Amino acid sequence: MPAYRAPLRDMHFVMNELLDASSHYAKLQGCEEVTPDLLAAIIDSGAKFAENVAAPLNAIGDEHGCKFDNGKVTTPPGFREAFQQYGEAGWQALGIPAESGGQGLPTSVGMCVNEMIGGANWALNMYAGLANAPVTCLIHGGNEAMKATYLPRLVSGEWGGTMCLTEAHCGSDVGLLRTKAVKNADGSYTVTGNKIFISGGEQDITPNIIHAVLARIEGAPKGTKGISLFIVPKVLLNPDGSLGERNAVHCGSIEKKMGNKGNATCVMNFDGATGFLVGEPNRGLNCMFTFMNSARIGTAIQGIAHAERGFQGALPYAKERLAMRSLSGKKNPDGAADPIIVHPDVRRLLLTAKVFAEGGRMLVHYLARELDIVQHSADKAAQDAAEDRLALLTPIAKAFITETGFEAANCGMQVFGGHGYIAEHGMEQNVRDSRISMLYEGTTGIQALDLIGRKVLLNGGVNLNLFLDEIDTFCTGNASHSEFTAPLAELSKEWRTLTGELGEKAVANMDEAGAAAVDYLMYAGYVTQAWLWARVVVLASTKGDADGGFYQAKIHTARFYFQRILPRTRAHLGSLRAGSASLMAMPEALFIF
Amino acid sequence: MPAYRAPLRDMHFVMNELLDASSHYAKLQGCEEVTPDLLAAIIDSGAKFAENVAAPLNAIGDEHGCKFDNGKVTTPPGFREAFQQYGEAGWQALGIPAESGGQGLPTSVGMCVNEMIGGANWALNMYAGLANAPVTCLIHGGNEAMKATYLPRLVSGEWGGTMCLTEAHCGSDVGLLRTKAVKNADGSYTVTGNKIFISGGEQDITPNIIHAVLARIEGAPKGTKGISLFIVPKVLLNPDGSLGERNAVHCGSIEKKMGNKGNATCVMNFDGATGFLVGEPNRGLNCMFTFMNSARIGTAIQGIAHAERGFQGALPYAKERLAMRSLSGKKNPDGAADPIIVHPDVRRLLLTAKVFAEGGRMLVHYLARELDIVQHSADKAAQDAAEDRLALLTPIAKAFITETGFEAANCGMQVFGGHGYIAEHGMEQNVRDSRISMLYEGTTGIQALDLIGRKVLLNGGVNLNLFLDEIDTFCTGNASHSEFTAPLAELSKEWRTLTGELGEKAVANMDEAGAAAVDYLMYAGYVTQAWLWARVVVLASTKGDADGGFYQAKIHTARFYFQRILPRTRAHLGSLRAGSASLMAMPEALFIF
Repeated sequence: MPAYRAPLRDMHFVMNELLDASSHYAKLQGCEEVTPDLLAAIIDSGAKFAENVAAPLNAIGDEHGCKFDNGKVTTPPGFREAFQQYGEAGWQALGIPAESGGQGLPTSVGMCVNEMIGGANWALNMYAGLANAPVTCLIHGGNEAMKATYLPRLVSGEWGGTMCLTEAHCGSDVGLLRTKAVKNADGSYTVTGNKIFISGGEQDITPNIIHAVLARIEGAPKGTKGISLFIVPKVLLNPDGSLGERNAVHCGSIEKKMGNKGNATCVMNFDGATGFLVGEPNRGLNCMFTFMNSARIGTAIQGIAHAERGFQGALPYAKERLAMRSLSGKKNPDGAADPIIVHPDVRRLLLTAKVFAEGGRMLVHYLARELDIVQHSADKAAQDAAEDRLALLTPIAKAFITETGFEAANCGMQVFGGHGYIAEHGMEQNVRDSRISMLYEGTTGIQALDLIGRKVLLNGGVNLNLFLDEIDTFCTGNASHSEFTAPLAELSKEWRTLTGELGEKAVANMDEAGAAAVDYLMYAGYVTQAWLWARVVVLASTKGDADGGFYQAKIHTARFYFQRILPRTRAHLGSLRAGSASLMAMPEALFIF
Repeated sequence: MPAYRAPLRDMHFVMNELLDASSHYAKLQGCEEVTPDLLAAIIDSGAKFAENVAAPLNAIGDEHGCKFDNGKVTTPPGFREAFQQYGEAGWQALGIPAESGGQGLPTSVGMCVNEMIGGANWALNMYAGLANAPVTCLIHGGNEAMKATYLPRLVSGEWGGTMCLTEAHCGSDVGLLRTKAVKNADGSYTVTGNKIFISGGEQDITPNIIHAVLARIEGAPKGTKGISLFIVPKVLLNPDGSLGERNAVHCGSIEKKMGNKGNATCVMNFDGATGFLVGEPNRGLNCMFTFMNSARIGTAIQGIAHAERGFQGALPYAKERLAMRSLSGKKNPDGAADPIIVHPDVRRLLLTAKVFAEGGRMLVHYLARELDIVQHSADKAAQDAAEDRLALLTPIAKAFITETGFEAANCGMQVFGGHGYIAEHGMEQNVRDSRISMLYEGTTGIQALDLIGRKVLLNGGVNLNLFLDEIDTFCTGNASHSEFTAPLAELSKEWRTLTGELGEKAVANMDEAGAAAVDYLMYAGYVTQAWLWARVVVLASTKGDADGGFYQAKIHTARFYFQRILPRTRAHLGSLRAGSASLMAMPEALFIF
């Protein structure tokens, strides 16, 4: 198993150089103390946890997996202790507002730590990530008593948490859910139903687990307008706050999965469990969506995590493994063969993994910065603009970064040849672990519908045009970098045009939007990445050979991106412009085997 | 686990309608008895074995895997019995010449059976496939005594076989191999060395295993010119042919792998094992390459197998699973939601899996037909032409069909949303099992170098131009189908042009060939598929609504291919035309993390 190394240099580059963290934090209310030194200290400390605590458990988590026996779940060896250390070190509290018992640091700081710990061990990271579900729900909808009861022990990492949404018959179409809640005389509710795919629904890591559960109150409207949110603790509390009676919620089984095996995916049975309403009745989805929006960015991080691991795993092998001679002449004449990094196609695989890891990192931390502005800016116009930008780019980030993360994981594996298929190198685990990221938190198809539908067409293209205006201004202002800004400006123009075309077609037939959706999202992702890489070039080109060639490597990588990856926009453009007929014309009856 | 259904209708379409099997076999020496009725009977019988014997063991093979204990390998429950049935039914003997104890049927017939049994259970199929390694080697290089000793029991399926090529430090660069052979007084050799990735190297299925081993005779030249081929039986034979002493070859361990778990991947230690030279000393690779060329087509079949399973697994789910409403209006107004097959993107996923399964099938069986001609035609010119066509298209088939097979397997999984990640639906196993196909028998990168180097540039483009001439003639002759033939003719022209460009660039710098290789291969694959789909359209357009709309479905599928898949050539073209600089300019020292 390759050791994971936190990408500190690149993270500092993205945070401080590309995104100018210090002036960013200085402008946010209550974030002024986040100086470059503090940010560096937090990132360094997170890196140590990632490298020394989380990473060594990654292969162990896969090998041991989670065990289920009669309602109990045993997590892999070391996970409990690591999670305790995580809580004690204050990582769980990092981004939680001070008034809720957290450290009150901006979300973007937590995202840096999240990326490193997730890169080191995604399965472990998810136990922490899901504990944020009840935290976020309570902060946004809980009353003071509930906050006082649950938040401190969630924020400290003493207790875990979950998000209970999916049922066997419905996931994305949450309006179909059947779990029901009946109000009791004391104001609590009795929750009955079955949930599936509950990450960390049962575990032996924390003595209590706080479930955030979507359910329908008896008599509530059908569909999404009748869904309420409840807190359902695994263990009920005594009046003094100590652990009391076991609640009627139990794990029925855990799933046998392709990967991410260190994290228990549970079937949870609510058999008349006691729950507490969070927020208004029938408004549960609003509350939950606050968490889900940040969870989508959190899942985008998973794409970076696996791309980074793909690159880190493959690079030493590419430098050490000897096979065949360079086509342009021996590079290692004294050896039996050349190291495979001399071969252009091996470099293509490495650079593909690298460019998606680094590109995903830029986009995620850019979005985290926008989240900071929404949460902490005193400038209403800036907040609104950030909210609009987030709305537009979140589905792109979630789907594009996870799709390319999976590709990058596969590139890492491919560098190893047949050895990549063998468990000991960790590359096949990386591919398996990454595959879930395109499925949960809304599949790529669901993200694409959100983008083309709500975020672009129903928005009248307003948010998109503002984004493209910014790209155009950037290109105009950096015309001297025409190698990058000229094609980028062309793409921006084309993106506007094709969106207009699509809008017209969709007026006549909404299936045109659905048919174009995934190609449109991938196109959007490639152009968004091109914008970030062009910004990198502008920045790096002032730095010469500084820092051991770090900036030169950035320019090489950007050039690789523009020359060898960006042509993919041609494929997506051609495919989406072909329209819906070739998808929809074939009668369902002819789909047979 | 979805049941596997042999794609009988499509196989008959490809064999009889597209490839005109009956006139094909009538022209081959010794194959005249393969009438349409006989072919249908063999395919139907193979389908029954695939569906009833092999398919039910597919999930079992994954779940149990192979167990290693002190040199012994236990295969999954049922595998031994299935393999015995396989041999007894005569499947192992199908394509083996009658004079070698086989049924003497043309290779193409065996490929049909291979596709179905492999589609049902690839891991099981591989035990049979690898037994062909010593068979092919012996037929091409063994003396009469060796043939008489080994062939009957290999051909009957009584014994298994392997191909022992890879060593820990070398796979594709086979010239580096170190296993050595020392001649004994009795003419046999003492073989010493370690081999890895030996599929079926040890198993409990057959009482003997015949290893085809590449090794270097003491004093032989370095590199590929000093490699000889040996037969090394697991159990030596007594003079009367009965099983005698255990040979000094043992399994040291088996690999823990991503998938294909029912097939044991073994480390084999040859500790002074007794081996028998096959063919001339130092000419072992020639002998082995006969097997490896057909093994590449055999691996291409794996791409079809997983694409077909992806489609078959996903389709019933897409028709049954209810989620959300069609954007163009409710299609299932009495239900809680519409079946997801109404959604354009779900159809895109299904059609992608379908078009790669059916397209791969056409290309593989087309190549099998060329193999028949090489092996059985009395017309030397036809043989040479078939050999040239095979040389050109085999690397394309191997790499393109396995790459798209993996994509199709992922499409099948994606249709299931989060459920696709769970073992019970079989889709994640299908993805895991398929992933090896892009790695073994030469990675995609190795196939691409073979194509661009030996098969195109070193061939002066002769074979390619003959192929493109045939495409052009087809397009001219079917100009009335201009929806398909016009873009195909354009692509043919473009393929010629870009090959010329590439040749010129490669003269100056061979890294240009390496840098373009994989994009070139994928481009070639998409155009080759377009040719086959255009042929399908010409054929199907004469059939109207016959056969329950089978031909209409073909035309819909072809249109999907041309409109939604073929634009990918734009991405590959742009990427490969960008040249090698963006891959090679970055100094190795800047590849760091």
